[in-house]
Amino acid sequence: MNHSSIGLFDSGFGGLTVMREVAEQLPHENLIYFGDTAHLPYGNKSAETILQYAFDNAQFLLDQGIKLLIISCHTACSYAFEALQQKLSIPVIGVREPGIEALLQATRTKQVAVLGTRATIASGFFQAALQSRQIDVHAIACPLFVPFVEEGLPNHPAAKLIIEHYLAPLKRTAVDTVLLACTHYPLLREAIQEALGSHIQLIEPAPATALAARDLLKKRKLLNPGTSPPVYQFYTSDDPQKFRQLAKLFFPRPIEQVLLSPCKK
Amino acid sequence: MNHSSIGLFDSGFGGLTVMREVAEQLPHENLIYFGDTAHLPYGNKSAETILQYAFDNAQFLLDQGIKLLIISCHTACSYAFEALQQKLSIPVIGVREPGIEALLQATRTKQVAVLGTRATIASGFFQAALQSRQIDVHAIACPLFVPFVEEGLPNHPAAKLIIEHYLAPLKRTAVDTVLLACTHYPLLREAIQEALGSHIQLIEPAPATALAARDLLKKRKLLNPGTSPPVYQFYTSDDPQKFRQLAKLFFPRPIEQVLLSPCKK
Repeated sequence: MNHSSIGLFDSGFGGLTVMREVAEQLPHENLIYFGDTAHLPYGNKSAETILQYAFDNAQFLLDQGIKLLIISCHTACSYAFEALQQKLSIPVIGVREPGIEALLQATRTKQVAVLGTRATIASGFFQAALQSRQIDVHAIACPLFVPFVEEGLPNHPAAKLIIEHYLAPLKRTAVDTVLLACTHYPLLREAIQEALGSHIQLIEPAPATALAARDLLKKRKLLNPGTSPPVYQFYTSDDPQKFRQLAKLFFPRPIEQVLLSPCKK
Repeated sequence: MNHSSIGLFDSGFGGLTVMREVAEQLPHENLIYFGDTAHLPYGNKSAETILQYAFDNAQFLLDQGIKLLIISCHTACSYAFEALQQKLSIPVIGVREPGIEALLQATRTKQVAVLGTRATIASGFFQAALQSRQIDVHAIACPLFVPFVEEGLPNHPAAKLIIEHYLAPLKRTAVDTVLLACTHYPLLREAIQEALGSHIQLIEPAPATALAARDLLKKRKLLNPGTSPPVYQFYTSDDPQKFRQLAKLFFPRPIEQVLLSPCKK
């Protein structure tokens, strides 16, 4: 069991920003990543559809014998985290809670913003979780961020205009900390920072998520005791060749092989 | 059979620009539209995945007893038109050929441009079809156009910059006619026209497609002889409520009810 892999899934490539951190902080763990690119993006789809996709993805990873599941997609977490945690016999970690904890530690003004897909923001999860801890939240859906990242144009002048368009409501607020609540958004980090100014702190949930995974494996005595180089496996539900090309943007280690998931839906 | 409906499908809403023209030119025909929004968008996906989705959509419409199928999506046409035409026992029409005919009639310089999704342009269909008729083709993939339309920002300054970005290669060419080879793009028509200048003629395939449907039904004696108001039915594979809201942008007639396709994949 300790030698089993950690499984991660996302609708596409964004979750690889989480995998990168997990690989960094848990260098002896074997990892399996599943990018459900046939159904990408999840961000504008309905709760019911997202839940179905998340279940299918988790089942595929369970069939590979994983010891821990990390849902590496905020949209999927928004609609499937509790359901998967209840149903699965292995531990499940998401990207929402670690992000919130990092946000709480960082804010001084107790006014924060959360940027996410339309579906993530519509779920209301971040708003409820932060308001219950006396934090004032500006929750902003940014549906064009993912397409700009996927088109490889995060620094195009049009991306800057779109960033300004979505972030305009933050002007003249006391917001001091902004959570990037979508695993694609770190690739727009520089442009977002420029639009907001250097006095605003940007929080990515990936490092905190990787730490949470490490703590959980340690507590449950599930850490891999081996010291041989780990195995990284990549699966996708659409074209593996395309996946490999785009994945390089998100995961800076060699990606030798990408396989088509046999249970393509 | 004459009273049966015409079926149309698209990955989402763009195909409704075709349905609008069909409703205009064939006012006595009953129409069934299926928007496969659970898998939207098709434009960046692989040939194999698009083919599978197109077959599933066609089967759903066949189960409703349609007399004619109009594939109202250029991406789906690019990978599934021939296969569906061969397999189905009813006639099948696409949006590619009518668009090409309209383009050929309009160009004087014999230099044209075709704008489409990444998958449509990668299929090479328009390039081959036009070059074989001694037309010089500039084929340009415009992957961000669909997200801008779906975000309801077709006239945002960022959309203008993106349009200029994609259309820059047309500067200093003798191109006089541009085909909008994606059923979403008519919603960006004004901004595209502005970027190109008024001397360039823009071609939408929807009117020519509706004409082709009328000719085919007439020739096969399949026109609906009834004169009662037609029935328009709408199905989607994702949230019907969301579909109804966005569909209004594309189809300016009352949309009373949208149903979830029972065979949701």
